[in-house]
Amino acid sequence: MAFRIERVAIIGVGLIGGSLGMALRRANAATEIVGAGRSEENLREALARGCVDRISGSAKEAVHDAGLVIIATTLGATERVLREIAPALEPDAVLTDAGSVKGSVVAAARTILGNRFRNFVPGHPIAGTEHSGAAAAFAELYENHRVVLTPLAETNASAVHTVQLMWETVGAQVCEMPVERHDAVLAATSHLPHMLAFSLMEALDRRADAETVFDFAAGGFRDFSRIASSNPEMWSDIALANKAALLEVCSAFETQFSLLQEALAADDQAALKAMFLRAKLARDNCVVPESNVES
Amino acid sequence: MAFRIERVAIIGVGLIGGSLGMALRRANAATEIVGAGRSEENLREALARGCVDRISGSAKEAVHDAGLVIIATTLGATERVLREIAPALEPDAVLTDAGSVKGSVVAAARTILGNRFRNFVPGHPIAGTEHSGAAAAFAELYENHRVVLTPLAETNASAVHTVQLMWETVGAQVCEMPVERHDAVLAATSHLPHMLAFSLMEALDRRADAETVFDFAAGGFRDFSRIASSNPEMWSDIALANKAALLEVCSAFETQFSLLQEALAADDQAALKAMFLRAKLARDNCVVPESNVES
Repeated sequence: MAFRIERVAIIGVGLIGGSLGMALRRANAATEIVGAGRSEENLREALARGCVDRISGSAKEAVHDAGLVIIATTLGATERVLREIAPALEPDAVLTDAGSVKGSVVAAARTILGNRFRNFVPGHPIAGTEHSGAAAAFAELYENHRVVLTPLAETNASAVHTVQLMWETVGAQVCEMPVERHDAVLAATSHLPHMLAFSLMEALDRRADAETVFDFAAGGFRDFSRIASSNPEMWSDIALANKAALLEVCSAFETQFSLLQEALAADDQAALKAMFLRAKLARDNCVVPESNVES
Repeated sequence: MAFRIERVAIIGVGLIGGSLGMALRRANAATEIVGAGRSEENLREALARGCVDRISGSAKEAVHDAGLVIIATTLGATERVLREIAPALEPDAVLTDAGSVKGSVVAAARTILGNRFRNFVPGHPIAGTEHSGAAAAFAELYENHRVVLTPLAETNASAVHTVQLMWETVGAQVCEMPVERHDAVLAATSHLPHMLAFSLMEALDRRADAETVFDFAAGGFRDFSRIASSNPEMWSDIALANKAALLEVCSAFETQFSLLQEALAADDQAALKAMFLRAKLARDNCVVPESNVES
């Protein structure tokens, strides 16, 4: 089924918003795609690279006449953007976002949007790379990637349908999940690994022999620590926004890591082997897409 | 300088030993390369793929007449192999190994080899992939990869020279390091990341919603957890062999991870950002080869 909408506004035209705009343009899915954001340089890059048809210096102006508004800023900027655009939204405009945590966004949207909250469809495309900005955008980013929508009881079914069609138009696989479930799952598979990578890099960096240590790091270390290169501001936003679920999985991790250290201290090879085997089987059995990454 | 030796024996012709044999053969560095190992099937594969010139059912027989003997078995088998070949070694034969931990190998070799310990050059090629066996061997594995040698005060300089030339012949960059330093560095950059990946996978696998969690894992998770797919037996050997250094870095990691959780619990965004930034800068500044991996 073809998806077609008059005017789309994308607030935040970085890797996520820019790639979405590019893919929607390629699919000829909108009459016009307007991009807004804080960095003029990035907006010009977005326009030059074909992420949007037009750029606007103001989010408020950009949402004027838009039938679909996508907030693709960092998580920390979402509340500010919601406050800015709320008074300017068209009465029937469908609104969605791309934030990695849904509970905090839903709470802010509920407060700020009032009776327009029904047209807000919280969303999270599970795609990305370790790069950011419109310069890193590409139209294929969402192909065969998951997008999780977390509509609430009061969310308009037609708004959910619109957002679902939009994501399917750019090649994504859409599924729905309760807000709390999404945040717990992402805490486990994305937010916790980032925290582990950050803590590892910091622990190593604090060593007197840090330089030698990094000098002898091999490929396994490179892959493992790649996500520690992620944007510190973005990730402090995410960690705080998903604090409860994240602290819970941190604690579950610590339990296993303590058991591992106990087995090691006790020279319990059988216990270690059993732990590593369970981990290996879980890893080998979980099918993760080989293309693209969410950093 | 061209490296040429009469007969080379490789005990353990898997990814590490098989790739070395292949590269030495390609460089025409030996009159004959003999391979020995426990699995007849793997030995036949090694012969078929050109890892060795000849295979032998017995390590003891293989080292007969060999001027250079390379132990490339798993760490756990090293002591057994040393005991088996010690009585059969030629008086001037140079002996080296490829184990990921050097302290435990050196202790075993010192006890078992007696006055031939002087000709034992402990070594560790920092190269590998997540695959194993002769089927995974390739001649380019060591090109531009580091090999650490950890000679002792009593090690013969000429033996060290021979082993160094051998590794340089297959394209590796050789450096020397004290045994304890090697084990501390590897604990930090290789052994600890493996423990973290194993514990993460086990913690997630123990969740009631494990299936959903893995189902929504993205590329960042794939890279981060890849090393959890490593061989459980090999890694329990490594962890135990490097117990002291590993427990020390585990504890350093835990300190940082606790501080991170404290900052998160206290909503201290400034502290989180500072931690993540330090980690990011350390990661961005550490140059890790982009090709090949050590799993």
